[in-house]
Amino acid sequence: MAEGIKLAIVGATGAVGQEMLKVLEERNFPVGELICLADPREAGTRLKFKGEEHIVAAATPEAFKAADIALLAVGSDISQMIAPDIVAQNCVVIDNSYAFRMDPEVPLIVPEVNADDIDWHKGIIANPNCSTIIMVVAVNPLHQAASIKRILVSTYQAVSGAGKAGLDELDQHIHAAINGVEPILSVFQHPIAFNVIPHIDVFEDNAYTREEMKMVWETQKIMHAPELRIAATAVRIPVYRSHSESIYIETEKALSPQEARQILADAPGVIVQDDPLHNTYPMPLFSSNRDEVFVGRIRRDISSENGLAMWVAADQIRKGAATNAIQIAEIVSAKNLY
Amino acid sequence: MAEGIKLAIVGATGAVGQEMLKVLEERNFPVGELICLADPREAGTRLKFKGEEHIVAAATPEAFKAADIALLAVGSDISQMIAPDIVAQNCVVIDNSYAFRMDPEVPLIVPEVNADDIDWHKGIIANPNCSTIIMVVAVNPLHQAASIKRILVSTYQAVSGAGKAGLDELDQHIHAAINGVEPILSVFQHPIAFNVIPHIDVFEDNAYTREEMKMVWETQKIMHAPELRIAATAVRIPVYRSHSESIYIETEKALSPQEARQILADAPGVIVQDDPLHNTYPMPLFSSNRDEVFVGRIRRDISSENGLAMWVAADQIRKGAATNAIQIAEIVSAKNLY
Repeated sequence: MAEGIKLAIVGATGAVGQEMLKVLEERNFPVGELICLADPREAGTRLKFKGEEHIVAAATPEAFKAADIALLAVGSDISQMIAPDIVAQNCVVIDNSYAFRMDPEVPLIVPEVNADDIDWHKGIIANPNCSTIIMVVAVNPLHQAASIKRILVSTYQAVSGAGKAGLDELDQHIHAAINGVEPILSVFQHPIAFNVIPHIDVFEDNAYTREEMKMVWETQKIMHAPELRIAATAVRIPVYRSHSESIYIETEKALSPQEARQILADAPGVIVQDDPLHNTYPMPLFSSNRDEVFVGRIRRDISSENGLAMWVAADQIRKGAATNAIQIAEIVSAKNLY
Repeated sequence: MAEGIKLAIVGATGAVGQEMLKVLEERNFPVGELICLADPREAGTRLKFKGEEHIVAAATPEAFKAADIALLAVGSDISQMIAPDIVAQNCVVIDNSYAFRMDPEVPLIVPEVNADDIDWHKGIIANPNCSTIIMVVAVNPLHQAASIKRILVSTYQAVSGAGKAGLDELDQHIHAAINGVEPILSVFQHPIAFNVIPHIDVFEDNAYTREEMKMVWETQKIMHAPELRIAATAVRIPVYRSHSESIYIETEKALSPQEARQILADAPGVIVQDDPLHNTYPMPLFSSNRDEVFVGRIRRDISSENGLAMWVAADQIRKGAATNAIQIAEIVSAKNLY
């Protein structure tokens, strides 16, 4: 332990990978050795960490021999392919993709909610979907207090959910709209500048997108609440990096907005921003580059008996991805679970 | 009738006023005489209608002596002040503001829903809130078929809801964000470029905004459904002129998505855009400059027994304001109710 963790980051040149480097540095994670890996085409890229330059290497199987923990910030197909080999080399995988999240042998972790599930990992730990992480940090404390029966959520998701390519595409589409030229569609199905696209990830047979179903399946798993009923509408909007969510919950026990506000004020990882008369509520622009989940607009759902409405925003790249993964790594490290 | 309606437009230089001129021309409204009025500071402005130039006059009480119908596209305070005087001159007022909407003596009209309420007008007819119009056109046909008990809605509202000033402010904020200068806040509480503001109109005592409560009160009145339970979250997003809405409904009778799609395909003023496998669903960019309400993403609400989820988009300035007002004027004219 004294010498620190030998940490590999796969996908180090991507939006989440680069954010991981920042978060590791900010949180002073006990890095013994840092191994930056990526697609062979990215090999040779230089990245800065704690003032030192690191040269990105190709993510070959041998690269993990020296690593204790590998943070995977790559697509599901790549994770699926490389994770078992990494685990076979006695390196714990914290995977940011969808590949293993619903595997009953793999814990799916949001540290503020189910940190103890890390204890039973068998080599792979999954980092949840960004919209799901943000939602469960905000609703789990209320579930503990009053038992949530049902959640109806509509999201307002930043383009960073589509990685660096998504950020670049919003830039290009904004310039195209202003200058009257054609937007180039590569990651989005339609122009995203001054538009809204109610379509994230592929459509499932039930007419929900996979993004929407992730918010159902993953929330039930993280909160240990298989009976919790959830419906989601996931929407891409022209915002850079923070997701917002309009959430309606129905609880078993009555909970007043004031009680909910108090519970959330005491909850880990949550900042209550709920002073509407001073125009204070969560907004993506002001929750970007922050690690907390911001909650506000807490009020009775006037259409139901035991219902609350609330508005949540948080940085998709940080708490929705990089920060959550590193919080998991911190626990793996502190508990010697590697 | 043969000579046409003597029509006054008050607020003719505003975003809604100018759109009214376009819509009157497109729909070939039987205009006998057109009287363009506005704030005295705007007097003298030249506007085009059917190829002819009209000079805007100050909206003095005398200006309405010659008018049969006055379309008011001004703020509530102005409407409140001038409407009774206009009515006293035997001119029917169709008011776009909030001033008279909840007055039990004033019909609140969405022609696709409650056109017959125009019959009992006493001089003033109110045009509803834009988000409300868009929602009721989409949900009323389903209410007729299966009796809606509850609606939970989250909106994605264009800046045009704040008029020409809102459109200009999004422009300025986008340029400010790109060029790294300070955004100038005048109509919005916070920067709107690359941001989302969960705050439209003032806050009521119950912690809902007035915009949100309009969607409750006005929907109940238009649909003649005082028992219908509704909760709304109204959110401003960086889109120019179409509002979108994520709507969850619960019905008394079961209704399959396929039945709902068929009912809406046959409903007046609705276009069903619901072919997700071909990336077809309503979007603000493609519903702008259109008069219809676009409905898609129709699916079972998997969190409830008799629930449906849907996604709606429509042009706020047109169906949400100008077009709806002119549809009312068409009925007043056709039925000789002036």
